[in-house]
Amino acid sequence: MSASVVSGWPPSRQEQIKNFLQLHNLRAWIAWRPDELLMLSGYFPFWGASLLIYFADSEPVLFIPQIEPRDHIPAGPRVREYPWGDLKCDDPYSVLLSAVGGELTKNGIELEQVGMNPGAFRASLPIQAAEQIPIPEDFAGRLSTLATKRSATFANLYLRKTPAEIEAIRLANRVANVGLQTFSENSQAGATEAEVASAVESIIYRQIGREGIFHSRGWAMVQSGPNSADAGRFNRSTGRRLMNGDLVLIELATCVNGYWSDLTRTIAVGRPPGEAAEILEVVRDAQNAAIGAIRPGVSAGQIDAMARDRIAVQGLSSFFTHHTGHHVGFRYHDPGFLILPGESAVLEPGMVITIEPGIYVHERGAGARIEDNVLVTETGHAVLSRAGAEHCDHN
Amino acid sequence: MSASVVSGWPPSRQEQIKNFLQLHNLRAWIAWRPDELLMLSGYFPFWGASLLIYFADSEPVLFIPQIEPRDHIPAGPRVREYPWGDLKCDDPYSVLLSAVGGELTKNGIELEQVGMNPGAFRASLPIQAAEQIPIPEDFAGRLSTLATKRSATFANLYLRKTPAEIEAIRLANRVANVGLQTFSENSQAGATEAEVASAVESIIYRQIGREGIFHSRGWAMVQSGPNSADAGRFNRSTGRRLMNGDLVLIELATCVNGYWSDLTRTIAVGRPPGEAAEILEVVRDAQNAAIGAIRPGVSAGQIDAMARDRIAVQGLSSFFTHHTGHHVGFRYHDPGFLILPGESAVLEPGMVITIEPGIYVHERGAGARIEDNVLVTETGHAVLSRAGAEHCDHN
Repeated sequence: MSASVVSGWPPSRQEQIKNFLQLHNLRAWIAWRPDELLMLSGYFPFWGASLLIYFADSEPVLFIPQIEPRDHIPAGPRVREYPWGDLKCDDPYSVLLSAVGGELTKNGIELEQVGMNPGAFRASLPIQAAEQIPIPEDFAGRLSTLATKRSATFANLYLRKTPAEIEAIRLANRVANVGLQTFSENSQAGATEAEVASAVESIIYRQIGREGIFHSRGWAMVQSGPNSADAGRFNRSTGRRLMNGDLVLIELATCVNGYWSDLTRTIAVGRPPGEAAEILEVVRDAQNAAIGAIRPGVSAGQIDAMARDRIAVQGLSSFFTHHTGHHVGFRYHDPGFLILPGESAVLEPGMVITIEPGIYVHERGAGARIEDNVLVTETGHAVLSRAGAEHCDHN
Repeated sequence: MSASVVSGWPPSRQEQIKNFLQLHNLRAWIAWRPDELLMLSGYFPFWGASLLIYFADSEPVLFIPQIEPRDHIPAGPRVREYPWGDLKCDDPYSVLLSAVGGELTKNGIELEQVGMNPGAFRASLPIQAAEQIPIPEDFAGRLSTLATKRSATFANLYLRKTPAEIEAIRLANRVANVGLQTFSENSQAGATEAEVASAVESIIYRQIGREGIFHSRGWAMVQSGPNSADAGRFNRSTGRRLMNGDLVLIELATCVNGYWSDLTRTIAVGRPPGEAAEILEVVRDAQNAAIGAIRPGVSAGQIDAMARDRIAVQGLSSFFTHHTGHHVGFRYHDPGFLILPGESAVLEPGMVITIEPGIYVHERGAGARIEDNVLVTETGHAVLSRAGAEHCDHN
């Protein structure tokens, strides 16, 4: 698919946000979750202690800790620093809050004209990802003296990606595929699950410094043989050694410059028993059926049914225990409707969803899932996560 | 240091918690942050959606998602599952909250007798670490119908580690040292910072499955040459290639089975210029001075001064811009007092602190920090993060 296919899609990110603010009679939105910052300004925070005021009528103001690196802050927002990280400042958040209040006052904006999301439920991680985001426990409470509106419809802003965002998600998927190549090469009898997973994460991290990549991190979880039957409940890597005849499943989250890919592959080591091989074959067929049906106007429930029905006709429906997919790109799991039985929400151009049917049978000591990231185009879909960017036009 | 040196330390974890509950007239504490669960029950969550009720008068009750793995849940708590992860359940948190309420009612415990911490400020990550903890935005608010007391003194529970906890932190440091060995071996001219860091993370991940290790993950950040001068503000890895004459700094967070190590090393590639080598030498001297002074009864401010004074006499004090240390073990950064100028809090046996002086001079294109994790023993200290567990007795 060429970029021109999507370039004409309205609305732009700016328009989407302005429409949202107008709908809720808001003159400003305060954001601090990493994925909100990224979506509203193109900025992906290092520490996770940055805050953005998005104004309906003027350029955004971005507050960053004084110790934040500056080399990946995009043009656009007016940047202010506050003394987070300064040994001599006891309460940098008070300084921040009063500066935020000052900006709002200066613009004549009142409490009931300002909105925000209070929590960080499943939000994406900042670049410094070794602990929870350093926004203190009482921050949302203190912020509520400056912002009163909260809106569930903010989540709608995640749904339709712009051409530039799609390219960024495509890059994350390209990096993820380098990891998946390593997965295939390393999945040999005798290697532990953790060894295979560590090689995948390692090669993803090593992409930092390549053209256009300032941040690249993978979370790889490999489950083999009987452990693959757990992969519908949780994903992790143990010290189990791969054996001939195993199905081996990798769940791989990849973040490149703040944009996310979420992929799964299942491969066989040697020749698996027929009842394991069958699982993998049915999953592949179900995934192809669901992906093949993706185009604007089709409901999420219809897409789910395409996968679920293929599994049902094989008598395996009780082993497909989760949704068929979710939105992806600003997070490992973007907010928004799920690809789920009966879901009436309809696909639109610019949406990026996962398609990830799975079958997990403890009695067969095997499980399989295949997951790709699929863009809804104006006329059909494009699989962002396959080499060569497979594109299907339904015209 | 042998285990027997610490084995007699009162109080036990149970006693510490019971004293805390008594002090605040509480009959129960509700915990859901990964490090709180670990400290109160020895259980490190997979998803981060588990919740523990710690009762003053009976065994704890642990609520886990129905999709949580079971093979590392310790004996002790009574385990209940709730339908998080069940496709058919729209609001598993309502089920959880009503079950929690039921347990409290059954025990005749009233709202004002129950405490909790609302947020996740810098809390440790669960095993599934690829996104923020999946406790929803309104969870703390909904929980407040069941628990009213919040206490800042809960943080005191993190300060004194028990013998079993110290052994777990020692194991995390042993694994971290395997990573640091890889750091030394890979820090060669021509390698990128990201390549060196990825090799360190990879070998740490590969420890899963070894004796007693079900979870092992490292976050390695490598800064070389001029980039090392940023290491007092932030730590990350770029695509810069190491050059002869560089100082190379690694910041390494390691989590093993839920317990954390926080280490930094700085080494030279080839022969660095004298003004860079001097920085490293002064840091080493400052760190030795601070560690050498660690024993029960000494204040944090005194320890800080030991390091800071050594740096000041070299005329470099304006380049040491952060604290000398913090508590560590249940998190990358445990709550509690810092090792900071003028801090009057006093070291006690069982505390584990980092000692991490650093000097960062952009004009010299070089920065250095050395960080170890040091246990306060009954008579002196033991460095948990050095091979051979260096032990110094002040008697």
